[in-house]
Amino acid sequence: MLRTHTCGELGEKELKKKAVLGGWVQSPRDHGGVIFIDLRDRYGLTQIVFDPSHNKEVHKAGETFRREDVIIVEGHVRHRPKGMTNEKLKTGAIEVLVDKIVSVNKAVTPPLDVDDRVEASEETRLKYRYLDLRRTKMQQQLMFRHKTINTIRQYLNELQFIEIETPLLIKTTPEGARDYIVPSRVNPGKFYALPQSPQIYKQILMIAGFDKYYQLARCLRDEDLRADRQPEHTQLDLEMSFAEVDDILLLTEGLIKHVFKTMLDKDIKTPFKRFTYQESMERYCIDKPDIRFDFFCATVTDIVKDAEFKVFKDVVAQGGIVKVLNAEKCAEKLSRNQIDELISFAQKEGAKGLAWMKVTAENKLESNIVKFFSNDVQKKIIEKTGAKIGDLLLFGADKEKLVNDVLSKVRVKLGNDLGLINKEEFVFCFVTDFPMFDWNDEENRWDFCHNPFTMPKKEDLHFLETDPGKIYTYQYDFVVNGTELFSGSVRNTIPELQEKMFRIAGLSEHKVKERFGFLLEAYKYGAPQHAGFGLGIDRLTALMQGIHDIREVIAFPKNKSAVSLMDEAPSTADDKQLKELHIKLDVVKVEKKHEEKKE
Amino acid sequence: MLRTHTCGELGEKELKKKAVLGGWVQSPRDHGGVIFIDLRDRYGLTQIVFDPSHNKEVHKAGETFRREDVIIVEGHVRHRPKGMTNEKLKTGAIEVLVDKIVSVNKAVTPPLDVDDRVEASEETRLKYRYLDLRRTKMQQQLMFRHKTINTIRQYLNELQFIEIETPLLIKTTPEGARDYIVPSRVNPGKFYALPQSPQIYKQILMIAGFDKYYQLARCLRDEDLRADRQPEHTQLDLEMSFAEVDDILLLTEGLIKHVFKTMLDKDIKTPFKRFTYQESMERYCIDKPDIRFDFFCATVTDIVKDAEFKVFKDVVAQGGIVKVLNAEKCAEKLSRNQIDELISFAQKEGAKGLAWMKVTAENKLESNIVKFFSNDVQKKIIEKTGAKIGDLLLFGADKEKLVNDVLSKVRVKLGNDLGLINKEEFVFCFVTDFPMFDWNDEENRWDFCHNPFTMPKKEDLHFLETDPGKIYTYQYDFVVNGTELFSGSVRNTIPELQEKMFRIAGLSEHKVKERFGFLLEAYKYGAPQHAGFGLGIDRLTALMQGIHDIREVIAFPKNKSAVSLMDEAPSTADDKQLKELHIKLDVVKVEKKHEEKKE
Repeated sequence: MLRTHTCGELGEKELKKKAVLGGWVQSPRDHGGVIFIDLRDRYGLTQIVFDPSHNKEVHKAGETFRREDVIIVEGHVRHRPKGMTNEKLKTGAIEVLVDKIVSVNKAVTPPLDVDDRVEASEETRLKYRYLDLRRTKMQQQLMFRHKTINTIRQYLNELQFIEIETPLLIKTTPEGARDYIVPSRVNPGKFYALPQSPQIYKQILMIAGFDKYYQLARCLRDEDLRADRQPEHTQLDLEMSFAEVDDILLLTEGLIKHVFKTMLDKDIKTPFKRFTYQESMERYCIDKPDIRFDFFCATVTDIVKDAEFKVFKDVVAQGGIVKVLNAEKCAEKLSRNQIDELISFAQKEGAKGLAWMKVTAENKLESNIVKFFSNDVQKKIIEKTGAKIGDLLLFGADKEKLVNDVLSKVRVKLGNDLGLINKEEFVFCFVTDFPMFDWNDEENRWDFCHNPFTMPKKEDLHFLETDPGKIYTYQYDFVVNGTELFSGSVRNTIPELQEKMFRIAGLSEHKVKERFGFLLEAYKYGAPQHAGFGLGIDRLTALMQGIHDIREVIAFPKNKSAVSLMDEAPSTADDKQLKELHIKLDVVKVEKKHEEKKE
Repeated sequence: MLRTHTCGELGEKELKKKAVLGGWVQSPRDHGGVIFIDLRDRYGLTQIVFDPSHNKEVHKAGETFRREDVIIVEGHVRHRPKGMTNEKLKTGAIEVLVDKIVSVNKAVTPPLDVDDRVEASEETRLKYRYLDLRRTKMQQQLMFRHKTINTIRQYLNELQFIEIETPLLIKTTPEGARDYIVPSRVNPGKFYALPQSPQIYKQILMIAGFDKYYQLARCLRDEDLRADRQPEHTQLDLEMSFAEVDDILLLTEGLIKHVFKTMLDKDIKTPFKRFTYQESMERYCIDKPDIRFDFFCATVTDIVKDAEFKVFKDVVAQGGIVKVLNAEKCAEKLSRNQIDELISFAQKEGAKGLAWMKVTAENKLESNIVKFFSNDVQKKIIEKTGAKIGDLLLFGADKEKLVNDVLSKVRVKLGNDLGLINKEEFVFCFVTDFPMFDWNDEENRWDFCHNPFTMPKKEDLHFLETDPGKIYTYQYDFVVNGTELFSGSVRNTIPELQEKMFRIAGLSEHKVKERFGFLLEAYKYGAPQHAGFGLGIDRLTALMQGIHDIREVIAFPKNKSAVSLMDEAPSTADDKQLKELHIKLDVVKVEKKHEEKKE
């Protein structure tokens, strides 16, 4: 190596010894003719000293060094002068007096400071990603990611899981997003899809008898981007044979406990709470509940439907629901102004309003609308919501979906505003038994709620022909602090039943055969029951480090237009290249789009 | 779990205990009314017994089981009858008497036998890959791959290397093959390239200060396929900062030694032999020599150019060379017929012929052409080739490239035919100091011999303007048994020099800027010297298992038309999809191609 030591390792035991160090020049300082430089590499900082009384020539060269030059220097390790030691630094007791300059690679002035304190613009950071990645914080975040992935791999390897690489050039997969596609040169007019996940291949691997599979899999989705989405992401893709829901949840608990202990020295309590989808929707109005605090919801449609309050009455008449969020101990805590703010928040989220009542005494409610509710109804509301004296009840009344959406947001807002959420805490839970289908009003058909390959519950199969909306499944989600970490399920291993599912979701026999024929065929040759999940690694490693934007844990992310600002991908292709691939640009469309952009 | 044990673990210590097993039915046999089935999973085979005298109903069900049905059964472990134990099997001492059938997933008759002894056609194996992968051999091969990759990761992690994922949707990379490209929906008319390797990103990571990087990287190349090529492959991509050639070679030796010891319990001797490119070409006529045996070559152009032999004279006059392969101890070993066969082999490989001489006594040669060579010339030939009495000298005379090509093949053929090669042995070597450029006669320009980002040797830089063909570099190849395992180099960290290299290779200033501008820019902000390599994992893991076809160590390979026979990828795309992507099929071209195929 061109160096004898890294910039993070010299200490008192190397005193008087020779050392050759390589690294980047950070904060060069001239103190009365003596030049001090913090030399930086991935491992740390070492102070190096250019002293004209020690070596004139070397000192002269030292004067020319600027920020971010890469230099290799030879010198001797010595104590820092008294009072100059830096306890915070691993190498803070020593410095290296430079005898010789071995090599220099000059840097032009960097457009962003390599310093954790200074934040450049998003655009500058992405364009000069190599400078941004020099920051200690970014380096630590990517090292954390690396170590987390190692920890996961070791854990699964010990449990006899096998990592198997599945192809990137595949047939289309039926995930929620658009596929990226790749024109084939040798098969004119045909295209590969890039995997949105290895879903189908891992099912095939179970049919092939691999029993326990995982993969740190690269997944690509052509979506319109948000802060927590990237065209590419990495997921821990996993599948097990002869497994039931419990086996996957237990495995998850063990894995998470181990990873958090190893990486953060945090003891995560297991088992994690489990809610069925219906419980979660009822109590938290959402299928990924933040259970770090305790405000619960309850549906009161049946209780209030006959009360004199016209708003509720009308909603119920139109098939809507009335639901209560119990803001515990908030009757006094929240001023009238604060309640009004909550109401306008709810309105911004699409609600028409937000009725409220305070619990003032046993079985007694107080508010400007209480007069419309009989004592009996009041009593029943209090019973149903489990409210206690001093609690504030917030009422949502509208279509079910909207009520749940708004109340879940109001709930989290209150949790945050009232400081009920411990931001250092990770509280995990599982949500199980999701419905299979969701009615799509616009398209007038049943859509798959989640994974089409999920096994429906046997006891619900009689709804197949009559009411597919009532079919529940062996699907489970894994949630932490209100964020979904994975979705998984026991898979449908009965090809005839799987085909029926596709048909209910409106796929023609022809389409099913064309897209999934080979998979249905594969299930005819003997398949074990199997289950698995796909856990988002970007999200997990960001979350573990208290980071919101997953781009902070990805070395080379794209911006919100799916562009890499550093290398300007995507870029134009040669005509020759397109010709070889048997495609042409749709010129009219391209030009039109460009014009739109200009406008 | 739906089972209590796997099919590979029951033994005498579980005698009389209850066991629930799940697996695939293998070779059901009816022995006098009692049914025996080998139940198979990834972990092994267990014999299960359906005895009508024990349980009539269960026996009756047992009669219906066919090959590849998946069943879960509950039973009790018991000794096999005397004389019926199977020593070869982990579970060979016991069997499970079935009490209860828990579940059954029927299989239709499989189109290929799940049996290592039977080889189905390539096409059937790929189409029904899930059945092919059930074979113990295939499972072991993929498990071997998994464990090898783990071993590599552990080794590198301990050396403080960090695995960093680089993007799949990138800008074009300048490797030897065509890029696969991906149309962008949100950036009309633009395309991503899929990485042929993470080359540019790992260089950026070194500029970013990550110091020691690796990645088990997925690489995609749109090539015309051969047995050892796939559109996708996996490489151990690695790069180190402040490193010299020696550091990389030492690291490689350590890594290989460790991997072979761990995986195969083989002690690989280090250090590996090193040859410069020129030495390797001179001695072995190839830059990836098989050094498991000792036949050497030597150039004798200068020695024979004035001899009376017209063939040699003409070749030399036209700028060709004359080179000798010394087939040691072959003067007697090879009959005249065998020599004639060698000659026609050489002719098939493109040579006009293959002159030969036997060393019959000190400084004495014998053959039908010896008369054209003076005693002095004969003496010099013997000296130059180091030939001894009993050796056979084979002469190639033609253009340099052709001579080397043919003699290297003749050499390996002799090694194989004469049994000089120990097929169990792995003999590694490094070839270093490759040339930078190669003259391309057809295009009338200098091409990069290998990686354009390689650092040229300082002492050769004066040839930049005068004779780029004489510039040698810090490139090194890693070779085992005549197969290249990796190519790597110290990279060019001087942006002006890198730009000059591109210009010599005929790229215009504009093209350089467009394609590599961002990289050249990045090198201006302070870069450490760095070096690395990309090691083919498919090839390595195949080779370690004595397998020639890399498809045997890839779960889902493509065939030679880059088609996945199992799922029929690539396939057609919707018009809607193409419209969104701003592309059209080049209909004329597609139709033409289809017609060609039909013909």
